Formats: sequence, C-alpha cells, structure tokens
Amino acid sequence: MAEPNRTTCIGDYLVDRLAAHGVGHVFGVPGDFVLALMSKMTAPGSPIRLVNTCDEQGAGFAADAYARVRGLGAVCVTYGVGGLKIANTTGQAFAEESPVVVISGAPGMGERVRHPALHHKVRRFDDQLRVFERLTVAQAVLDDAGTAAREIDRVLEAALRHKRPVYIELPRDMVEAEIEVGAPVARPVEESEPNSLAAALAEATERLRAARQPVLVLGVEAARFGLMEDVLRFVEGTGIPIAETLLGKSAVNNEHPQYIGVYAGKMGQEATWRYVESSDCVILLGTALTDVEMGGFTAEIDPARTIHATRGRLAIGYHIFERVQLTDFVRGLAEAGLPRFAAADAPYTPVLGPPPEIDPATPITVDRVFARLVEYLTPGVVVIADPGDALFGAADLPVERGTGFLSPAYYASLGFAVPASIGAGLADPTVRPLVLVGDGAFQMTGQELATAVRYGVAPVVIVLNNDGYATERFICDGPFNDVLRWEYWKMPEVLGAGKGYRVETDGELGEALGAAFGDDSVYSIIDVRLGRFDVSAGLRRLAARLR
Amino acid sequence: MAEPNRTTCIGDYLVDRLAAHGVGHVFGVPGDFVLALMSKMTAPGSPIRLVNTCDEQGAGFAADAYARVRGLGAVCVTYGVGGLKIANTTGQAFAEESPVVVISGAPGMGERVRHPALHHKVRRFDDQLRVFERLTVAQAVLDDAGTAAREIDRVLEAALRHKRPVYIELPRDMVEAEIEVGAPVARPVEESEPNSLAAALAEATERLRAARQPVLVLGVEAARFGLMEDVLRFVEGTGIPIAETLLGKSAVNNEHPQYIGVYAGKMGQEATWRYVESSDCVILLGTALTDVEMGGFTAEIDPARTIHATRGRLAIGYHIFERVQLTDFVRGLAEAGLPRFAAADAPYTPVLGPPPEIDPATPITVDRVFARLVEYLTPGVVVIADPGDALFGAADLPVERGTGFLSPAYYASLGFAVPASIGAGLADPTVRPLVLVGDGAFQMTGQELATAVRYGVAPVVIVLNNDGYATERFICDGPFNDVLRWEYWKMPEVLGAGKGYRVETDGELGEALGAAFGDDSVYSIIDVRLGRFDVSAGLRRLAARLR
Repeated sequence: MAEPNRTTCIGDYLVDRLAAHGVGHVFGVPGDFVLALMSKMTAPGSPIRLVNTCDEQGAGFAADAYARVRGLGAVCVTYGVGGLKIANTTGQAFAEESPVVVISGAPGMGERVRHPALHHKVRRFDDQLRVFERLTVAQAVLDDAGTAAREIDRVLEAALRHKRPVYIELPRDMVEAEIEVGAPVARPVEESEPNSLAAALAEATERLRAARQPVLVLGVEAARFGLMEDVLRFVEGTGIPIAETLLGKSAVNNEHPQYIGVYAGKMGQEATWRYVESSDCVILLGTALTDVEMGGFTAEIDPARTIHATRGRLAIGYHIFERVQLTDFVRGLAEAGLPRFAAADAPYTPVLGPPPEIDPATPITVDRVFARLVEYLTPGVVVIADPGDALFGAADLPVERGTGFLSPAYYASLGFAVPASIGAGLADPTVRPLVLVGDGAFQMTGQELATAVRYGVAPVVIVLNNDGYATERFICDGPFNDVLRWEYWKMPEVLGAGKGYRVETDGELGEALGAAFGDDSVYSIIDVRLGRFDVSAGLRRLAARLR
Repeated sequence: MAEPNRTTCIGDYLVDRLAAHGVGHVFGVPGDFVLALMSKMTAPGSPIRLVNTCDEQGAGFAADAYARVRGLGAVCVTYGVGGLKIANTTGQAFAEESPVVVISGAPGMGERVRHPALHHKVRRFDDQLRVFERLTVAQAVLDDAGTAAREIDRVLEAALRHKRPVYIELPRDMVEAEIEVGAPVARPVEESEPNSLAAALAEATERLRAARQPVLVLGVEAARFGLMEDVLRFVEGTGIPIAETLLGKSAVNNEHPQYIGVYAGKMGQEATWRYVESSDCVILLGTALTDVEMGGFTAEIDPARTIHATRGRLAIGYHIFERVQLTDFVRGLAEAGLPRFAAADAPYTPVLGPPPEIDPATPITVDRVFARLVEYLTPGVVVIADPGDALFGAADLPVERGTGFLSPAYYASLGFAVPASIGAGLADPTVRPLVLVGDGAFQMTGQELATAVRYGVAPVVIVLNNDGYATERFICDGPFNDVLRWEYWKMPEVLGAGKGYRVETDGELGEALGAAFGDDSVYSIIDVRLGRFDVSAGLRRLAARLR
C-alpha cells in the first residue's frame, strides 16, 4: 500500500531530507534573506546543528571536508554577499568530487516583483544561479510549492550520484510554503552495457595474467564511490601492490602490507615511482591524472601498459570502452579469479618512521617536523594538509584510517585546512584533526579557530612559518611571495581560548606536540619557525627534477 | 603626423595602461599562473605598486575602495582559487558602480591544449570567464597578441565609462608576447538627443519655478560621474537644500550651509525626512532608490512630485525621457537661470555635535561612540563604515570631504571596511581612515590589518563589539546571530604591530580616541564593549517604524 501523502513546509522538508541523507551539521553565516530557514535549522527538535563560521569561505571549506568524511555536506548562506563568497569553495568541491549542497537564501518572490533594487543584488535576480550553474551539477530555485519537494529530491540525488556540489536557492517567502509530500520517485540508474563490460574485463584480466609486475594506483574516486571493499578483495586476492595519488591518499590504510606509498611522479619517493614506472601493467583507478598528482607532469607512465579506469572513461592501452561503470569493472576484477602475484619485492619502507631521537638544541627543520609527527599518527588522527609544502611534506606520512587524510590536492585552494578541520571533526567526533598549514594559507582562514572553539572541535594546528609562499619561491620569487610574520602562537590571546606554542628547536617541537596531543579540550597552535627556503623532501625532489 | 607604432609585450602594456589611467596600486595575492605578470608589476621602474593582502577577498574590497576614491582600481589574482574568491567583491563593485579592473592570471594556452587536468580548474577553462560575465560590464581573454592591446583599451575604457568592474584574463604564456601598439582608437561617446534634452529641461525648470519647497537628494552617481561641480553651481545659485542618500554620502561637504543630512526614509533624522517628504519638488539625482537607501521602504516620496534622474533613466513625474545624459541634464539645470529660493527654513541641525562632556565612569553606549567621534572628523579623515549598525550610526556623522565617507550601503557585504581602509589610505596618502566595523564583520576580514602594517596605512579601527550581528537581532533573533567574543584589542599581539584599546566606559573611549588619533605611525584598534541590544539611533528609528 502506498504511503499516504503528508503535509509539511519547504523549509522543514529541506532540513528533513538533508538529515535523512546523513547531514547532521550545516555550516553557514546568517543574513536576512536566510534567517527564516536558519530558524528552522535551530528550532527545538531540528535534526541538524547549524555551525556559524566567521566568514562564508570558512563555511564552504568546512562543508567540503564534512562531505568528504560523511558522504554529503551542506553550506547555508544568504543571497549575493553570502553565495558569491563561496563560489571558490564550491569550485573546489566540483573539481575534487566532493558532494556539497549549497543552500542560499534569496529575496522573496513577492518583494522581487515590487522592488527591483533589493540589497545583496548584483544586476539581475538570477545572477547567482547563473554563476552556480558553472560550479555545480544540479540547481533548483524553490519558487513553486507545487514542485519544491521533487526539486529538492532531484538535486540531492544528483549530489549523491555524481559526488559533486549542487545548488538550492530558497526565496525567503517560500520557507513556510505548505507542500504535500508523497513517496520519492525512483530514478533510473546508469548501468554498464554487459557486452562492453565483459570485453573490458576479458582484456584487463588477460593483461594482468601476462604481467610480471602489476601495480594499482588508487585515485580519489576509489574512496568517493565506495569502491574500497572490492578494491581490497582484488588486491588481497592477487597480492598486487597498492600506491595512491595525493588526492586519493588514505583510501587505503597506509599500514597495509601491500602499500607502497604515494605515487606523484618524481615528487614522490624514488622507490615508489621506480616501481610504478617500471611496471608492465599499471592500473590507474579513479584518478584524472592531474598535474599535481602527476608531480608536475614528471610522471612517466606508458599508456600502452596502462589500465586507466575512472567514472567517466575506461581505457585499456589504447582501447577505449564505453558504458562501463567503474563499480562494475572493479567488482569484475575482484571476482575474476586472478592468480596470486609474488608481491615480495614490494619496495615500500616508510621513510619517515621511526622518528629520530630528539636533539633539544637543534634548530627545527621541515624534515624534522614531518619525522616527529609520525609518532602521533594514531588511527584516531585525521591529517588535513593545506596545499603547498604542507601537502608535499605530508605525502609521505603513513595514515592508517580511511579518510584519514584530507587535502585539496588538485584544485589546491589555500586556506582549506583550518576550516576543514572543523568539518572533519564534526563529521566524525571520534577523530582528532591534525592541521598542517603554511603561514600564507593561515592568514586567509586562520580566524576560523574561533569556530573550532565555539563548537568544541580541538585540532592540533601546525603553522609552517617561513615568511611566505615557499612553493612559489621555487617557481618565481619576488616580494609578492612574502607575508608579514605574525605571532601565530598568540592567537589564543585574541580568541580568548586555545593553547599556543612557539617552536624554534627540535626539543621545543617535541614538547609542544606532546602537550598538544595530550590535551584534547581545545585547539593548539604550534608556530614553527623555519628557514625561508627550508622545504620538504617532496618539494626538493620535484624542484631538482624540474631544473 | 601619426605617432609611430612601438613594440612592447602584453604584460608591460597592461601595467602601463593601468598606470596611465591613474592606478598606482594593484591589490592581490600571488599564485603560479599570475607570477609572471606580478613580476612585471614589481620589476624596477614599474609605475605600479603591488599590494599583497592576506586573502583575495581583502584585495577585492581594497581595490573597490581605491576605485571609489581614485576613479579606477585594480585587483590581480591567480586563476580559479584567486578569481572565484573575488566573485563577491566584484559583485559589490558592480552593484555600487565602482570601476574595478579584475585581472586574473590563467593557465598558458600551450599547456591547456596538452593537459586538460591543470590545477585550479573547476570544469572547463572558461568557467571563470563565464562567472565574471555576470559580474562585470566587459571582459577580455588576452590569448591573441594581435588583438591584446586593443582589447585592453576596450575593457579599461568600459570600466571608466560605466563606472563598473571589468575582467581581464591573461594566460601565463602570453605575458611576454610581443605586441605592436599604435595610437588608441577613439570610441564614439553617447550623447543626449538635443530635443529630448531640451524638453526635459523645460519641464524640469517649469516645475522648479513653480515649487515652494524644492529639495535635492544626491545619490552615488553624483560623485562617481563627476557631477559635483555642476551640482554645486545649481544648488548654490538657487539656494535649494541638499540631502544625500546613504550610498551617496559625502558627495557634498556635510558642513555645506545648505546640507540637511542623509535621507534614508524613516531611518534618517526626522527633520530631514519631514523636509524631503513634504517637498513639492524632490530632485532625486543619481540614485537607484534601493531598499537600504529608502530606509527599508519607509520612504514616502510621491513620484508625481519627483524629478528622478539617473545615468540610465530620467523621469519627471510620470514622464519618462529617453536619451538624456545625466551630465547634460545637470549642467542644463545649473545653467537654466533659475531664481533663488528662500532656503532659510532648511532644517538641518547637526544632532551629533558638539559632543557631550566626557563622563569617565559612564558605561559606553553606541550613542556616545558616535557623539564622541564628531570631534575627530577633521577634513583629513575618511570614515569607512561596514554595513549594519556601523553604517546606520555613521549616517549622521558630518563628513567634510568628498569621498570622505565610504560604505557598501546598497550591496552591503560585511567585511568591507578593514580592507577598504587600506585601499582608501593608499589611494590618497593624505587621509587617515576611520573604520567603523561590527564584531561579526571584523571576524571576516580583520586579519587585513596585517596588510595595513606592511604597507604603512594607519587606520583607526573601532570595533562595535556586541557579541553578534546586532541588526539581524531586530529582524529574527536566534543563536546564529551570536559570534564568539574575541579580545579584538589584542590583535597587535598576534600581528606584532599596532595599538590596542579595550573600552568599557565613556572615559576610556575618550582616552583611546585621543591616543589613536595622536599616533598616525600605525593602526589602532579600539574594542568597544557594548550591550547586546544597544544600537544606533538610526536603527532604533527604523525598528520603531517597521514595528
């Protein structure tokens, strides 16, 4: 018997559907066009907690991180001054396949007709919608009570299916509009064409059976599309070694016996890239071969020896297969009954562990920072790295947990890490976020530590303080790469909460890390004073190769 | 004899043309796709100073303020992660008619062809261009050396003509591309249709001659389009009293004997609105009648008694005139030989001055803050007010200087004031910026005080600290209107520079203001601890009226 229709209002329905898809927190900044909807979110009995950030940019990054950990995230802002502030964070979510629901309040339909010159408006009432058409995979303006429920369903379903951001605009006079809600409509799901799938699997398994040294390189889609169960069946059955791309890092537990490190062209460890590049059958799974992931195009992988499978394209050598779903292909590999390869020559030795003895008086260096961190990487820690040398250095860190590593390793928007730590910490309250951030990036969004204080998230924040944009100094240096030297460790004085540490020696770092990880009641900020040209091993390798 | 063509490169030509139009400072944040262009800007002999902000948002706001003061401003960022971060500030510049040149680096044309998956890219290489098509009046992608010079000319000319933002995208491999530059092309200028202009002036002057109590309300376009010389000839010849809108404030010296205050519906002073609304001939000049300027639509001005002239539309009563240029119309009024009206009943008495005696122990209130500020409003001070109660309170401040008041009083994006003070201070080094900002807005962009330190601008920053978004509390209150209470006065500890003052009493405010204005070597931040519901007279008037 069909469920009877029930009556609700647009605002409540939207909140309920988000919660039904596992969204427990929505990040945002208020403004008059969204106050009615925010009142729904904060009403007694609301299934959602609204998290106020300092700036909308912080909300956008936090929602992105939340989505990566939880499978769906949401950011809620006002019209114009709120929505346009998160164009960039939404662009990043698109590029890196993170399903973020962008919810914007908007002028009421009634007031738009009466008054064209309403505040927060650029030129036309649809400017913001048109901007987000470029940055999201589905959009809805909820200006019709007759279609609003179906529109919400359609757009949320698109976010979940495509793992990309979507846009919902809710005029403020529609929040309370009454709607009738029936059973959700089942939408057709894309399926593989059986013969194409069978042909692809036959060709792939034939190559694998003939291979001497096959290797799997996992990209971001492995985790995003929930492929890891089949991936592990496949590799554990065959003994094939596993590498990861930078953006895919932590899809697999880095302590897995078959794990051989991050493959990122010549930026990665030599043992890893030698193994991958000398393989006679490389399986690239769920990666778009971005410039960052390919180590600034220092990667040398022969397409003729490659099986490259992504959600949109499957290539085996120079054969392109159409209509093969990534999930079906991976499951097919897992169930193909492939023989066991000798993986004994897997070359991984974790270069960063165990850490060297503390030498109290030695000036601190980037290398020592990353070496020292290894001992704190328990399974409860999520490493969140800002782009730049924080990311390059973190590539070698052994991370045990799925989604234990978050970084915008393709789109590479500076300022992600601090707000992302709030999203990650709220998405999974059992984790402790460890933030690695450059000084330049910290100056963009570091104020969001205030949000961490307010909502009880306690990241350990390591500021790699080297007076500027260190990565850029290697490309083209000039005064534009300098930033003002702040006393980052004094942030707690301004925020009225937190613990700050100033670190100039190896000994001071050891003490600061011990204290920071020993106190999970509040954030800690460790201001690590580095030399201006002291960079990670990864960046040194890359620079040496590109010269 | 025609000037001979000269040879240069695209990057140098762009920098030279900006400088030729009076742009002495460009605000921005570096990134690899824009480093080559930034190297041009910072090369020895460059006519431009590049100003690095902490975040791109700060650069966008600073450039907007610079453009308002100087007539043209520029912001320079990298692709994607830089460009999309200033969608909002560009939207504001569009809405409020501020000519900002948005310059974005971009991937080289060569690398785009070889590698689709370049970092900082959302989906397609033209996504950012398409976004800025909605937010600017002219766009150019400088991907062709044969047209680049003309394209730069075209786009800069559009910014200057329309007083609105424009967009220039420069692929990094085109910066050094050699170009031949000839004489600039003269473009046709829009002109009034003479008969339509004559008819409009005849009708307007007839109305004015018959009027008993005419009044002029100046909007933003009066200053932006350089009309003030003719406006002053007109009002000084006729004795007609002058009001201003919030966005137009400081077009005229507020000490002008005919000045009667800000007209903003019932949010403004009663004497002002009573005078305007009882006028039998209101001249609204250069204002779009926005909701903020009309006091949340509490304005009651009968269109039948109104001459409403803007750059796009001229209405005299219900007669609409086409093809009448605003400049011609205003000049025509000035030269119409109108009689002198008795302006003796002009009702303005500056409610805020002189300030009351300091009562050292009295707890500080919003009213006392604004009253106390009056004595510091010398002609060298530029008041920069963030939207919200900082703006409503500042409406009554008597500002003497043209462009002595800056505020996004229509688009109303929070966080404008601190970065804008840097733009204003560099645009005119003779001024001292006085920033009025709420605590919520300060948390968005307050870190840009670091930029003020770096480039030697010394604003006096008054943080109206009332634990949240006070204006929103009047519309719909909830926990979303709260912010964490920071110790704003301790910002100098983090930045390593500046003077901080914590103010709880009238006496402490007097001391802090004296010290802050007495030291122009560095910024001062005055953390004014206010009651949670203590708001300005303007907001009280508006709330009373709307209830």
